[in-house]
Amino acid sequence: MPRISPIRSSKGGRREGDGEESKTWKVALVGFGTVGSSVAKILVERQNTCLRLTHVCNRNVARKKVDWLPADVVWTENFDDVLASETEIVVEVMGGLQPTEDWVRRALMAGKSVVTANKQLIAHCGSELIGLARQRNQQIEFGASVAGGVPVISGLQEGLAGDELFKIYGILNGTCNYILSQIETNGVPFATALREAQKLGFAEADPTDDIDGLDARAKLTILARVALHCNVAASSIVARTISAIDAIDFEYANQLGCTIRQISQAELKDDQLFAAVQPALVQLNSPLARVEGSQNLLMATGVYGGETVFGGHGAGGHPTAVAVVSDILAIARAKREGNSQAGKPVERSPHLTADFTTKHYLRFIVRDRPGIIAALATILDKHGINIDSVLQKPGCPKTHLPFLITLEDYSASLVEQALHEINALDFMVQPCLHMPIL
Amino acid sequence: MPRISPIRSSKGGRREGDGEESKTWKVALVGFGTVGSSVAKILVERQNTCLRLTHVCNRNVARKKVDWLPADVVWTENFDDVLASETEIVVEVMGGLQPTEDWVRRALMAGKSVVTANKQLIAHCGSELIGLARQRNQQIEFGASVAGGVPVISGLQEGLAGDELFKIYGILNGTCNYILSQIETNGVPFATALREAQKLGFAEADPTDDIDGLDARAKLTILARVALHCNVAASSIVARTISAIDAIDFEYANQLGCTIRQISQAELKDDQLFAAVQPALVQLNSPLARVEGSQNLLMATGVYGGETVFGGHGAGGHPTAVAVVSDILAIARAKREGNSQAGKPVERSPHLTADFTTKHYLRFIVRDRPGIIAALATILDKHGINIDSVLQKPGCPKTHLPFLITLEDYSASLVEQALHEINALDFMVQPCLHMPIL
Repeated sequence: MPRISPIRSSKGGRREGDGEESKTWKVALVGFGTVGSSVAKILVERQNTCLRLTHVCNRNVARKKVDWLPADVVWTENFDDVLASETEIVVEVMGGLQPTEDWVRRALMAGKSVVTANKQLIAHCGSELIGLARQRNQQIEFGASVAGGVPVISGLQEGLAGDELFKIYGILNGTCNYILSQIETNGVPFATALREAQKLGFAEADPTDDIDGLDARAKLTILARVALHCNVAASSIVARTISAIDAIDFEYANQLGCTIRQISQAELKDDQLFAAVQPALVQLNSPLARVEGSQNLLMATGVYGGETVFGGHGAGGHPTAVAVVSDILAIARAKREGNSQAGKPVERSPHLTADFTTKHYLRFIVRDRPGIIAALATILDKHGINIDSVLQKPGCPKTHLPFLITLEDYSASLVEQALHEINALDFMVQPCLHMPIL
Repeated sequence: MPRISPIRSSKGGRREGDGEESKTWKVALVGFGTVGSSVAKILVERQNTCLRLTHVCNRNVARKKVDWLPADVVWTENFDDVLASETEIVVEVMGGLQPTEDWVRRALMAGKSVVTANKQLIAHCGSELIGLARQRNQQIEFGASVAGGVPVISGLQEGLAGDELFKIYGILNGTCNYILSQIETNGVPFATALREAQKLGFAEADPTDDIDGLDARAKLTILARVALHCNVAASSIVARTISAIDAIDFEYANQLGCTIRQISQAELKDDQLFAAVQPALVQLNSPLARVEGSQNLLMATGVYGGETVFGGHGAGGHPTAVAVVSDILAIARAKREGNSQAGKPVERSPHLTADFTTKHYLRFIVRDRPGIIAALATILDKHGINIDSVLQKPGCPKTHLPFLITLEDYSASLVEQALHEINALDFMVQPCLHMPIL
């Protein structure tokens, strides 16, 4: 949509009251943490935009005050001040489900448009909020809720509108990617990589949401809705932790020409949506293997256009703030042009499954004794599963012996059935680590 | 801009005349070659969209007729038929500057919006056509004019609207990328790779526009306008041919940890726009080095969000058609919402230069004799240029001896001055091949 917009011009100062085209839109920031203060910074530094920050709303707002915002910005702890004001666009960057959901609803009811970076909120009740916005002739934009600064939502929804997308997959969680990269590069155990990530601020004190895939799952839910028009509950998407991955798995993966990444994927086939967030082996020459540190990457495949890649900084105050400001500008543009979100999304609610058919990576840790491979092969054979290869790194302790079995293409559920029996065998030190090979 | 649009729904057939939301927009196709027929195919197959193909206009239209389009589509050779019809959106996919420019103007004057995939047209007179569209309360969209199916224009213009972009670079010409990949992979001479590309349909019978960088230059002109708001004439951007590259250059590049790609780049620094299309050395671990065959890749860097990557199929009927249909849908959405392109782009017209400061790759072919390096070093020294390294592949003929000199960071113009003197030396078999190392 190459509409060249005057609001991105770099010349001239803020133009107020000189006609419709240069109308200034009033913006309230709810939440003044990392993202909120980056948004404020961009709004202040890019004087040329048609946006004016009127309110900053935050708990204990006194300790948040900064000297680099215009003196006429109202600092408040009371969201009712925002609601009662003439502010036209409310930017929610405070996070969490409550009171956020309630506040966003009240903003829309009060005739204000909303920009949110809150993936949990949109994954949880995005459809309803979009419906409410439409009903009130307002907009709700959530471009920053997925992949931070990478413009995947506008790309999927506008840039690829002409295609019929059926598959999306990629790396949506920078924390997991950072931890996995660290294990890969430095050969450290998972726990060490996690501690390092926490020390550097790449992982939270409670990292569960990231490492168990709940964060990526919320993002995948949003992308499935935007790209595939599928309405699924985030909680119903299978998410598997990366915490079982260790340095030895990267050694084995490398021998297979692969590395390991946390992959979020959703694919429409007939009336089924295959979706999961899980660690997986990806080919070393795939773009996914090249994603470094906390970068994000999304691949979208369409019937007509084939594969499109979007990549960049998935997190961080500034990149996320760029996405927020882009959304504010989109609302301003739409308001200036006198439109609002028209139309009603027709969404599928397909049968959801995580039962992908792929090659499989099975990593065992066993107490060594004769007959182990025979025992495993017997069970696999009983389920009609053929072994593709067996790999064993030399020089490991007999009481804690890691080795690898790879399988050709089988459904995940079939393999899981066999593993259920296998995990009960007496020589197993811990349950088998099972990952798809993409 | 996460507006979930009803026109992408997959349920339900074409809905006509049952209220505003499901209004059908009439579309005329001007040009029925590879892209035109792909656009028609998507419009026909995706019955659900709110678009109806009314006209196909092409020279010698009788030989173009296909049986898979609805019987009520009007086939015509006469553009006046389109102008006189009720068609609301004219899709120009015939290419060339004339009569295209004339026809696009007449369509806009007649109150029709226009979608074009014509990079030469937009590079040549895009600003004027956008101005005319605005004046007539219509839109002109040109998302397919750059990078085919990769949604870079919507990404730059909407998705990254919140950032202040200052640098774009990437691979915008699939033909060059295919030829360079072939030389790299198979070690064949340039002429062989070009013939192969022509045989496979990746290069035209007259490949000048591609290999001399004129095609990429037109695309770079459009991207500079969209991303950097710089209005420059395509013809004023330096374009250097890839035809001097040979297999030996990939060997040397590899020794430097690099490969060679045709790179289009534009960077704003103060009041200067640094821009060029040229073969360049790129690091083997950079995403640019991984671009295969006819794929395209664009990296955009902003003050706030850092680097964002867009990649995918840059050419081909279907990917380009996806971009065209996305643009048609964008117009339909805008029309339904009662808006048009408002506002006036404020563009810079900065001083244009190709005088990038980079490391340099100088590949010489000489008739060997004592004192060559000394002669070269003397001239380079006279211009204040230090040699970084000298590489010479063993076992080459003395009468046609290739060797490499690399230089540290110097401006291209300084190096060119020295090379002007060097190229006149009696031992030079051909002019030095000079590329930046990125």
